[in-house]
Amino acid sequence: MKPLFRQISIIGLGLMGGSLGMALRKGRVARRVIGFSRHESTLRRAKARGAIDDGDTELCPDWLGESDLVVIATPPLTVPKIARDIARICPGRLLLTDVASTKSLVVREVEKVLPPRMKFVGGHPMAGSEQSGVEAADAKLFRNVLCLLTPTARTDRKAVARVASLWRGVGCRVRTLSPGQHDAWVAEISHLPHLAAVGLTLTPGVSSLRLAGPGFTDTTRVAAGDPALWEEICSTNSRSVRAALDRFIRQMQDLRRQVGGKDIRKSLQAAQHRRGKVGRG
Amino acid sequence: MKPLFRQISIIGLGLMGGSLGMALRKGRVARRVIGFSRHESTLRRAKARGAIDDGDTELCPDWLGESDLVVIATPPLTVPKIARDIARICPGRLLLTDVASTKSLVVREVEKVLPPRMKFVGGHPMAGSEQSGVEAADAKLFRNVLCLLTPTARTDRKAVARVASLWRGVGCRVRTLSPGQHDAWVAEISHLPHLAAVGLTLTPGVSSLRLAGPGFTDTTRVAAGDPALWEEICSTNSRSVRAALDRFIRQMQDLRRQVGGKDIRKSLQAAQHRRGKVGRG
Repeated sequence: MKPLFRQISIIGLGLMGGSLGMALRKGRVARRVIGFSRHESTLRRAKARGAIDDGDTELCPDWLGESDLVVIATPPLTVPKIARDIARICPGRLLLTDVASTKSLVVREVEKVLPPRMKFVGGHPMAGSEQSGVEAADAKLFRNVLCLLTPTARTDRKAVARVASLWRGVGCRVRTLSPGQHDAWVAEISHLPHLAAVGLTLTPGVSSLRLAGPGFTDTTRVAAGDPALWEEICSTNSRSVRAALDRFIRQMQDLRRQVGGKDIRKSLQAAQHRRGKVGRG
Repeated sequence: MKPLFRQISIIGLGLMGGSLGMALRKGRVARRVIGFSRHESTLRRAKARGAIDDGDTELCPDWLGESDLVVIATPPLTVPKIARDIARICPGRLLLTDVASTKSLVVREVEKVLPPRMKFVGGHPMAGSEQSGVEAADAKLFRNVLCLLTPTARTDRKAVARVASLWRGVGCRVRTLSPGQHDAWVAEISHLPHLAAVGLTLTPGVSSLRLAGPGFTDTTRVAAGDPALWEEICSTNSRSVRAALDRFIRQMQDLRRQVGGKDIRKSLQAAQHRRGKVGRG
């Protein structure tokens, strides 16, 4: 079978970029994968892990220009900076996407800096792990994962289809929604649970923590995630995250009032029922 | 090797009782396991799964009297009721323990109803699952699990050692602490996380829930637990649960204030650091 893409460039070779490169090469979705990382050592490890065919520590206009698709796989605030750099050094047409966990600010800023010859589709494959770096990369990371694409009024339809084919090629289901809707939803099902796990981890004394069992470990696993990345996620989606936190705090205050009484049964039953609907999208 | 116990009776053949029976029989910790359940069908399934040698729907004084140890494996509020029934029908000496998730109220009530010829040690193997029933029972459920025993001033020391040998026999590490200390600690690392998972599950709209990925699934898994059991756990440990909820809500309000600013980094870092100490007890 002919690969869907001749050449794909990935900028940023962490957990996401590294895993994408591995998946593209293993699944023969792209004939050639080029990787960019500021660190020579990351490039070496990415090559050793089979995530890239070749790469450089500096963005290379020729390699980028020859790519069917450029994937910016960095934290949110870096995405528009990279897009601006690419626009400056690459003279030709180009299709770009990203994998950042927040979309409104990222998409708005990228659309500001890109010239019309460059097309951009915001993307967010909802995979991840509390681990990070190309060492933790996994060719199967995107299998059976939901990937959200966030086109705007300015986004080219063919570009959306092309980016969708990338993610389907590595095993994702793809849905499109607006950047604002994305950020509100993801605040509830990803950013809020992360902060709740942080709060749960900070609440007990250290001696209690040492007694914790598998329930606590599961519930707080995500709190082991990279603090710098999560600071950026919170700051680039602060309005939706605050709104989700406000609803959650009110919910916890309701449960607080119900403890010891009969009403709590209804909340416990409602939660058990709702748990059955998780991840059926 | 000679079994540690000749005969053990287990009252209540749900996830905990069923798993204990399977572990005792598979590991040859007891020569014979007798099970009691109100439902004939549960007894049949427990026998089919290898959890018991024999059993009855009614407490049988002969079988109980011949047991080296009687384990009451029911929800918290049922434990003192069963203890009272046993005291009424069994004339001889007996050693009893339980597996309930809350201890102050349970131990106090059991000590009220038991005559001096009967010795009781409160126990709580910190194993479990969001599943329930003997169908979900697992001979390995207690392996590498922490079991907390909660002796009081009235508890016989030899009885504590004997009950500890039961749990070590099925793979647990054993620690003793007072019932009050137990309840305060477990409120923080088990009951609070459960209610936070309930709150997280109730916060998003159903359409958001359908998009949820593995992070959300892990964080809220425990919310699928049995509502009736968790209502009892909350009501029999309401003071400690409320105190833990109050600290958690304050923590979440702090995080709410930090979202979008620089201070959140410190909280995220502290949580990541603390995650490394979980379950090292």
